[in-house]
Amino acid sequence: MFLEVVKSEGLSHLSYVVGDAGEAAVIDPRRDSEAYLDIASRYEARITHVIETHRNEDYVVGSVEVARRTGAEVLHGPNMDWDYGRTVEEGFEIRLGNLRLRVLETPGHTFESLSVALADTGSSEDAVAVFTGDCLFVGDVGRTDLAGEGREREAAGMLYDSVFGKLLPLGDHVVLYPAHGAGSVCGTGMADREVSTLGYERIHNPALQVRSRDEFVERRLGERHDRPPYFRRMEHYNRVGAPLLDRLPRPIPVGPEELEARMQAGTVLVDVRSPEAWLGASIPGSIAIPKDMLASWAGWLLGYDHDVALVAEGPRDVAEAVAHLARLGFDRVTCHLAGGLPAWETAGRPLQTAGTLDTERVGELVGRDGELVWLDVRKAAELEQERLPGAVHVFLGELPRRLEEVPRRGPVVAFCGSGRRSTIAASILMRHGFDRVSVWMGSMRAARASGARFIS
Amino acid sequence: MFLEVVKSEGLSHLSYVVGDAGEAAVIDPRRDSEAYLDIASRYEARITHVIETHRNEDYVVGSVEVARRTGAEVLHGPNMDWDYGRTVEEGFEIRLGNLRLRVLETPGHTFESLSVALADTGSSEDAVAVFTGDCLFVGDVGRTDLAGEGREREAAGMLYDSVFGKLLPLGDHVVLYPAHGAGSVCGTGMADREVSTLGYERIHNPALQVRSRDEFVERRLGERHDRPPYFRRMEHYNRVGAPLLDRLPRPIPVGPEELEARMQAGTVLVDVRSPEAWLGASIPGSIAIPKDMLASWAGWLLGYDHDVALVAEGPRDVAEAVAHLARLGFDRVTCHLAGGLPAWETAGRPLQTAGTLDTERVGELVGRDGELVWLDVRKAAELEQERLPGAVHVFLGELPRRLEEVPRRGPVVAFCGSGRRSTIAASILMRHGFDRVSVWMGSMRAARASGARFIS
Amino acid sequence: MFLEVVKSEGLSHLSYVVGDAGEAAVIDPRRDSEAYLDIASRYEARITHVIETHRNEDYVVGSVEVARRTGAEVLHGPNMDWDYGRTVEEGFEIRLGNLRLRVLETPGHTFESLSVALADTGSSEDAVAVFTGDCLFVGDVGRTDLAGEGREREAAGMLYDSVFGKLLPLGDHVVLYPAHGAGSVCGTGMADREVSTLGYERIHNPALQVRSRDEFVERRLGERHDRPPYFRRMEHYNRVGAPLLDRLPRPIPVGPEELEARMQAGTVLVDVRSPEAWLGASIPGSIAIPKDMLASWAGWLLGYDHDVALVAEGPRDVAEAVAHLARLGFDRVTCHLAGGLPAWETAGRPLQTAGTLDTERVGELVGRDGELVWLDVRKAAELEQERLPGAVHVFLGELPRRLEEVPRRGPVVAFCGSGRRSTIAASILMRHGFDRVSVWMGSMRAARASGARFIS
Amino acid sequence: MFLEVVKSEGLSHLSYVVGDAGEAAVIDPRRDSEAYLDIASRYEARITHVIETHRNEDYVVGSVEVARRTGAEVLHGPNMDWDYGRTVEEGFEIRLGNLRLRVLETPGHTFESLSVALADTGSSEDAVAVFTGDCLFVGDVGRTDLAGEGREREAAGMLYDSVFGKLLPLGDHVVLYPAHGAGSVCGTGMADREVSTLGYERIHNPALQVRSRDEFVERRLGERHDRPPYFRRMEHYNRVGAPLLDRLPRPIPVGPEELEARMQAGTVLVDVRSPEAWLGASIPGSIAIPKDMLASWAGWLLGYDHDVALVAEGPRDVAEAVAHLARLGFDRVTCHLAGGLPAWETAGRPLQTAGTLDTERVGELVGRDGELVWLDVRKAAELEQERLPGAVHVFLGELPRRLEEVPRRGPVVAFCGSGRRSTIAASILMRHGFDRVSVWMGSMRAARASGARFIS
Repeated sequence: MFLEVVKSEGLSHLSYVVGDAGEAAVIDPRRDSEAYLDIASRYEARITHVIETHRNEDYVVGSVEVARRTGAEVLHGPNMDWDYGRTVEEGFEIRLGNLRLRVLETPGHTFESLSVALADTGSSEDAVAVFTGDCLFVGDVGRTDLAGEGREREAAGMLYDSVFGKLLPLGDHVVLYPAHGAGSVCGTGMADREVSTLGYERIHNPALQVRSRDEFVERRLGERHDRPPYFRRMEHYNRVGAPLLDRLPRPIPVGPEELEARMQAGTVLVDVRSPEAWLGASIPGSIAIPKDMLASWAGWLLGYDHDVALVAEGPRDVAEAVAHLARLGFDRVTCHLAGGLPAWETAGRPLQTAGTLDTERVGELVGRDGELVWLDVRKAAELEQERLPGAVHVFLGELPRRLEEVPRRGPVVAFCGSGRRSTIAASILMRHGFDRVSVWMGSMRAARASGARFIS
Repeated sequence: MFLEVVKSEGLSHLSYVVGDAGEAAVIDPRRDSEAYLDIASRYEARITHVIETHRNEDYVVGSVEVARRTGAEVLHGPNMDWDYGRTVEEGFEIRLGNLRLRVLETPGHTFESLSVALADTGSSEDAVAVFTGDCLFVGDVGRTDLAGEGREREAAGMLYDSVFGKLLPLGDHVVLYPAHGAGSVCGTGMADREVSTLGYERIHNPALQVRSRDEFVERRLGERHDRPPYFRRMEHYNRVGAPLLDRLPRPIPVGPEELEARMQAGTVLVDVRSPEAWLGASIPGSIAIPKDMLASWAGWLLGYDHDVALVAEGPRDVAEAVAHLARLGFDRVTCHLAGGLPAWETAGRPLQTAGTLDTERVGELVGRDGELVWLDVRKAAELEQERLPGAVHVFLGELPRRLEEVPRRGPVVAFCGSGRRSTIAASILMRHGFDRVSVWMGSMRAARASGARFIS
Repeated sequence: MFLEVVKSEGLSHLSYVVGDAGEAAVIDPRRDSEAYLDIASRYEARITHVIETHRNEDYVVGSVEVARRTGAEVLHGPNMDWDYGRTVEEGFEIRLGNLRLRVLETPGHTFESLSVALADTGSSEDAVAVFTGDCLFVGDVGRTDLAGEGREREAAGMLYDSVFGKLLPLGDHVVLYPAHGAGSVCGTGMADREVSTLGYERIHNPALQVRSRDEFVERRLGERHDRPPYFRRMEHYNRVGAPLLDRLPRPIPVGPEELEARMQAGTVLVDVRSPEAWLGASIPGSIAIPKDMLASWAGWLLGYDHDVALVAEGPRDVAEAVAHLARLGFDRVTCHLAGGLPAWETAGRPLQTAGTLDTERVGELVGRDGELVWLDVRKAAELEQERLPGAVHVFLGELPRRLEEVPRRGPVVAFCGSGRRSTIAASILMRHGFDRVSVWMGSMRAARASGARFIS
Repeated sequence: MFLEVVKSEGLSHLSYVVGDAGEAAVIDPRRDSEAYLDIASRYEARITHVIETHRNEDYVVGSVEVARRTGAEVLHGPNMDWDYGRTVEEGFEIRLGNLRLRVLETPGHTFESLSVALADTGSSEDAVAVFTGDCLFVGDVGRTDLAGEGREREAAGMLYDSVFGKLLPLGDHVVLYPAHGAGSVCGTGMADREVSTLGYERIHNPALQVRSRDEFVERRLGERHDRPPYFRRMEHYNRVGAPLLDRLPRPIPVGPEELEARMQAGTVLVDVRSPEAWLGASIPGSIAIPKDMLASWAGWLLGYDHDVALVAEGPRDVAEAVAHLARLGFDRVTCHLAGGLPAWETAGRPLQTAGTLDTERVGELVGRDGELVWLDVRKAAELEQERLPGAVHVFLGELPRRLEEVPRRGPVVAFCGSGRRSTIAASILMRHGFDRVSVWMGSMRAARASGARFIS
């Protein structure tokens, strides 16, 4: 038997290859699917099945890719009008050597959600592990707000039944393999730990510490979740079968002149360097999304109807950025600036810079400079932790559509939890004509760490 | 938090790096220690502790290597006269960021055996996982025959107390991280599955299905385990601190002439190619130990007082063989035949071959050829499954010391479970003057698969 | 400027990526084209051109693959009815940054052969290196027997003019980059050295040490070259544009039963393990072509109208074998035996073995055993070096079509230069019902090395 | 035969492994020597010799490392009081299979300089290639200013004799393998091309286009070369045998607090991120040396008597920086900031920023702001190309020792050829109390590219 995890950083997406005796199944593959085939080859196993725990909404699922390359059958749950694959129901089983994978219908996060119980029949017919998709996470449960108008309460109740009626009865001893880890947009309270069991979650998962189904449901209904605009496209792709990627694209290297021409023709320039590098010098009009933030923010800030060009520190970073974007369905990454920003600089082209403020300087400015606009781009829920009095709040994901809420009376200082999201915000402001923009590096985490009194 | 497994194939040895927030500990490292440092670097963590679950007897532990390279402190259990490291006792704790590692004294396999409970204090003070060393495995418990004369019963009782009194009370929900997987010489019944929990083992581990402490003890005392001669050296090394390896040695490439000269001066030639390749053509005097069998058999068949030369299919296999041997403390691998066996062949030097028999041919010969000597080299316990009537039994590990038990009246046909161990046996026989030796490829597994009637 | 070599072992095929300032060209790419794109990405260069020095006959050229993936333009020479790409003529130039690539028509090996002179215009307009395709090699010139009926003399004269009239005048100081190294079927006398210049070849290349054009031509006409049957297909593919490979196929792992069923349905089983392993034990009906001999012998011995199954030592060797076969256009490698030969052995299925003779034993047998058939499978030209008196000669490449020339009066001992090709021969004989076959390991090289008197 | 280049980027250092038939030699190895041993292993060759073309002054030679790990003999030239290795003279030869390496004494760059002619005796006794060390480069010759007081003229004459009397007579057809490529401090005019021959250099190397020995000598004497302070240490190390490195060090990850404590105790903080990132936000007191500039600038700016801490973008960059520094003998890289600059920022610690100016803004400021100090940190020779009127010139390498030449009357704008060296300069200025410092990104290259009129 073998069981390997393929993790997509940024998305905090966990997919699995599990197999025995020459046969394997893949659970929730991503679109750049080479990793799954490599693992199967290493174990001399043939991928016979791809199982989707649900119609994912936060990335493009790679089932069709894997199926096309291996002949595997794609399986998914009922209550969805799929355009591909085979719908299976409670109790459906597949065998891979000594392993048995058994389908459990566990709706709630979505109506077609499945879990898959894994038994090692050489040892026992009992489950030893369970793939829970977005139903149950380490330290959290799946969100239930995606059910659609008017059905949130129904979905939350279903989730309760799935977790308490289907999963937990498998036994405390069952190892948990969820579809996401800490950092995913599919939950808010996931623990930064990739090891857990149903028993540990039963006892310690905060979301499961309820006295009644009603309490569980009310809590779900009280949660606030973001819904990035790209979810719609993911949902569509993952219902009808996404366009085949085959391979990750290789954007072509272009010089400053061609880059500029392409930008004028509508290509959006994404600068994937570090926040500090973007602050130090950047190309006017660029959107700063550091490469490890692409998975979280590209879906909010980029569209599917334009080409994307990249500025990166080197070819390795270009390739990483392309992978992150492809997983969100952004396949139009057509070029990157050859030689990186230095090529632009030495061509004598215009640069922009944003200001950098440290926490001490922020402390000096707060309350003393009436002209300054303090812009908080965190999620609403984060404001409950601490606030900067007097700050304007516009969530980063909505900033492009709510720019008019940012006063243009004077310089803007953007901040967030650490200074990273506010760097993205600064790039959006400057792209839209704000010309005096600074970022508070460290932001709220720095304020807390240094015991700043100006936050409340 | 991160937790990564480093697996040494062949030994079926599992070691772990676990850490959080810039600090890490290594559990039971192997001697070629680069992997641990690489993992720690990737997570930007400093290895502050090395924990040995016990004085290992089946490989050279790499604690001293890791400590020298990182400054980490080595921790191990009481009841042993260690020449290095620090002895810790029940309840000793270390913190790595949010993680807490807590020592449990779990003697039985050996008297100084420890387990280490891992808690993610960000979530709970309860253990979420436990490193059990050779106390509890997936599907088995540690052997208790190493306790020394007259103390086997005591050790078996201790193991019962450790498992039932210390480990299982941690809770069904606790994930199990043992020091060995299926195939290790440290247990006989381990499952071929690397995922388990205390609960799953409590319910399904055959060794734990007992009605009383006495029953458990009697079962242990009834087990028969091999004790390869190299265990003594491992035990010594791992008590006093093994010689520093620093890096895996790189044997020099030599031509046929130099190889022959070295063999005459006492170097032992180990042929690590596949069994079939050795059967097809080999150098007289060579011992066949295919590279993936080195971890299991080199300790039985090689000594520490002579140099070793290798014949392999290429430089990659040479390097793999060197690693396997170094983990057993065989550091005198001084050379390999450059160009592999073809270099020997084209130099016009003498070759030997052994015969290959398939199962059909064996069926024809059994009982009809009175001259033939059938040699079964399996472990005694395996004979309980099935036998070839009339076969002489000498366990492979003892063959060099019990050669006189093999009749020299006629051709010898060696067999085992699959034909692999019997190829090693054939090489030993030929090295000691047996000149008509054949191997039954497939052996008992083939007999069973083909429904052969000549076995019983 | 950068210039990297991509070498395909076995084929001894040399291809090149050369570029400067963001632009690159590929010379004579192979079909599995990832390597070229990786190199270009590393240098942040865009592949704008693919240059074919000629219509290759010994492998499938990857021009169409590279062009499809990069948008590059394919360039090749006149005198050929190409179905793709652009025909260019003497003096055609492309610029890549400071580099200039200039086309020289250098027919002879074939009529459309080109060379490409490379100048570093930042330093001088003179050529600093030249890509010579199959016109001029290190230590040899291209063969001229492929010109077609009646045109061999014309072709040989053209080659003289190309080398002496076009290449050498570029100057002694020009570095040589040919399309093949030692071991290729495209020449016989290539040196085992990958470094040379036009000057060094002018002085030391044996093929250039002639007093006249006529002498050069006569020597060419006196050469004997093999023409494997797959050349026709390569020539066709490379004229019309080969089928797109996209990616190397991944044959599926199958068990003994399915393998047997496929063999009965016409799949040809190729055993790519070492010669010694095949001799030790093999599956009846298998053709032995060790993986590093595939490039040379698969084209003689396999057809394009049947599926191929593989037996290998492990998944890494399967992948290597697939690459070798794909480069020759064998795309129907559909499966491999999961678990390798041990899976077959332990299933109790029939095995065959061939005999292994060392040189001393051969010396004993020669001339004393009238029943034995000695079979020499070397090329005709090699017989001029030394012979075994009384041996039957059938060149390995023609053996399947000339089996009736091998007497069936008694056991056959196959030999060649080293024992490797004769192992392939043994597999073919056994596949066709010869049941007592041995291989002389070491063969003629061993005879020479040991001063054997039985050869002449 | 095999010949592989190992290139150390940054140093533009070229070393070589050449071998045949199981034996190999290494020419001018670097200190982190794993690469040489890996190559030799791949070819199943034993490294028997290490040849130093001269006592290198720009990096620590790895001869002692390679010798210790392989038993190879170290060879170097006469006229030096070596503390290790064996001195060889004109005509000394070693054989490696069919290869012959022959020593030529070619003094001039230094008095003990050797070249090594390589012959492939299977083809001819003539040289096919020559390793020229720092005697002859692609497009340049070695500098002769290191000879010591009063001997520069003598050295320059020797170099003429070496090139014209020893090397060129080997023949136009001989391939050139020098010890450095473009970008090295060992020459100024090297071409950005790694392919050349003696003939190409004879005709096109600007340094060889002289009418007389005297003209050659005068040109050498007219050259101005930098001599970084670390050269002395390299010269010492390379004469007596450098301290063994064994492995590249792994600096430990530390948090902001420990980093600060170490800095207060004398550790120098080197920020190896990109110039733009340093400009955007950096730790006060840090010296900015982007990782790919370490090989050129660490030797000017760092000392050997203090520890070094690193700030990098991630663990991969830390490892690269460590390698660059170790090659210059900086072995005291003890720690790096775990989590990179964001860890510092979110701890609420102070940040500094420098200003960024683009070329348009510079054009606005030039001549209009009398307060501004324009600081040109290029080499003296570069000022001959173009100047910014009114700028103060202090070469970057000497800036720490000539700070008093930079007026403190107002803000400083640093510039150089591209903005990279001036970022380093800005970090030095700020470390020494200059508080209003800006960098002109793009600098002179940008001015030229944009046709700026303010330079002359």
